Amino acid sequence: MSSTAPSSALRIRLMARAGVLSGPTANLAPGFVQANLAILPCDLAYDFLLFCQRNPKPCPLLGVAEAGATSISGLGDDLDIRTDVPRYRVWKKGVLVDELQDVTRIWREDFVTFAIGCSFSFEEALQRAGVPVRHIEEGLNVPMFRSSIATTPSGAFSGPLVVSMRPMIPEDAIKAVQITGRFPSVHGAPVHLGDPEAIGIKDIASPDYGDAVTIRPGEIPVFWACGVTPQAAIGRATPELSITHAPGHMLLTDMLNATLSIQRR
Amino acid sequence: MSSTAPSSALRIRLMARAGVLSGPTANLAPGFVQANLAILPCDLAYDFLLFCQRNPKPCPLLGVAEAGATSISGLGDDLDIRTDVPRYRVWKKGVLVDELQDVTRIWREDFVTFAIGCSFSFEEALQRAGVPVRHIEEGLNVPMFRSSIATTPSGAFSGPLVVSMRPMIPEDAIKAVQITGRFPSVHGAPVHLGDPEAIGIKDIASPDYGDAVTIRPGEIPVFWACGVTPQAAIGRATPELSITHAPGHMLLTDMLNATLSIQRR
Repeated sequence: MSSTAPSSALRIRLMARAGVLSGPTANLAPGFVQANLAILPCDLAYDFLLFCQRNPKPCPLLGVAEAGATSISGLGDDLDIRTDVPRYRVWKKGVLVDELQDVTRIWREDFVTFAIGCSFSFEEALQRAGVPVRHIEEGLNVPMFRSSIATTPSGAFSGPLVVSMRPMIPEDAIKAVQITGRFPSVHGAPVHLGDPEAIGIKDIASPDYGDAVTIRPGEIPVFWACGVTPQAAIGRATPELSITHAPGHMLLTDMLNATLSIQRR
Repeated sequence: MSSTAPSSALRIRLMARAGVLSGPTANLAPGFVQANLAILPCDLAYDFLLFCQRNPKPCPLLGVAEAGATSISGLGDDLDIRTDVPRYRVWKKGVLVDELQDVTRIWREDFVTFAIGCSFSFEEALQRAGVPVRHIEEGLNVPMFRSSIATTPSGAFSGPLVVSMRPMIPEDAIKAVQITGRFPSVHGAPVHLGDPEAIGIKDIASPDYGDAVTIRPGEIPVFWACGVTPQAAIGRATPELSITHAPGHMLLTDMLNATLSIQRR
């Protein structure tokens, strides 16, 4: 027998590493967990780790690398944090200063990498259960809003909860609560449904991030905690240097979405 | 109207604070979450927080205090970490050096307090669902064993997973998996059931901690990740000074067991 073929997730990582993939990762390597990435100097790592512990819905941690390490235990055997994301954003004191396909040349031994769950995983579960996801149907990015719900601060990290919105009929919203509630490591159950103003959203047609989507008669907006929350908190904390994935350009892991409904040991 | 009466959990804290309660807290303030306590110097806080993140089943964090703080946000309004546990253990380089009812005089500004979920919460849920819990029936401590399952290390923290064991008939074991699986913040679903040797337990009649309990014909042992795991990991890390609760002498919080099956925001 020949050796095991690389998983489709590893193939995506290798394509990003080789520089031949620089685009978004939506719909690539179906079934595999995609992760938000946040890379911070280690003097901020404790406060950020505690921010994630205190705000598990927007910041569901999948893994944390050792300081300076370029791999994350449990997320993939052949994984290089510096090269395997198709596009990175580099921030100085909270200001976007660069977009790169490879951050090897700016890598530092004091960098700590956090991999955070992403809604792609639960959207796959929704679609398998026959719950339509509007922004996917319309080929758009999910609409996201800054809510009036405050996160629980930790050190320099704080700010409002950013939520993503998916419109659906009430029957599907009930299914969606049950389905996503089984996936706590990728944002879990919704934080709100119905009246947008109740969580401080003035205009549902004008998202703060992403694209507006059609809301049909009889549908209600359903809101989930969103992985932009920790990114925005990092922006406000103004670390001298930080790196994130570019929106939609995620880290492909070897974890399976199907396993996320089961608590790990 | 008069002001709100103190919760039964607060009454227990106040009794401990006044020094009139120095015994175990099992069965006190039913319905309220009881927590394991670990207090460490802040130079070890990051590695311990990461150890908890990497080992969520034995170390389900309910809250982490700010360095030096004597209260923990979200666990109770009138709560003093230094006085509200009926009995503390004081450790120097991993060796037990004292048992105290009040740690005010040895409190330090660099102490970070971790409150960790405890199996009392899921035992209440098991009993409500009609699943008998043997050690409670027999008036004993739960039997606990060092398993051959390794935790995922973080810095100085490492070591085997310690498991608690409850014998039950297979039908109840199936119910227990479902019930405790809904309580990830108090150890969650079992880590093993059946053959003790499969997880390195040579003699089920000789627990490493707690008491042996009767296993009746037709029953299988069911094993859960146990809060002694982080205590043992702290012992091995040999911090110059650390404080824990004495076994069975837990911190009463104002959280309700019933809410632990719902992921917090």
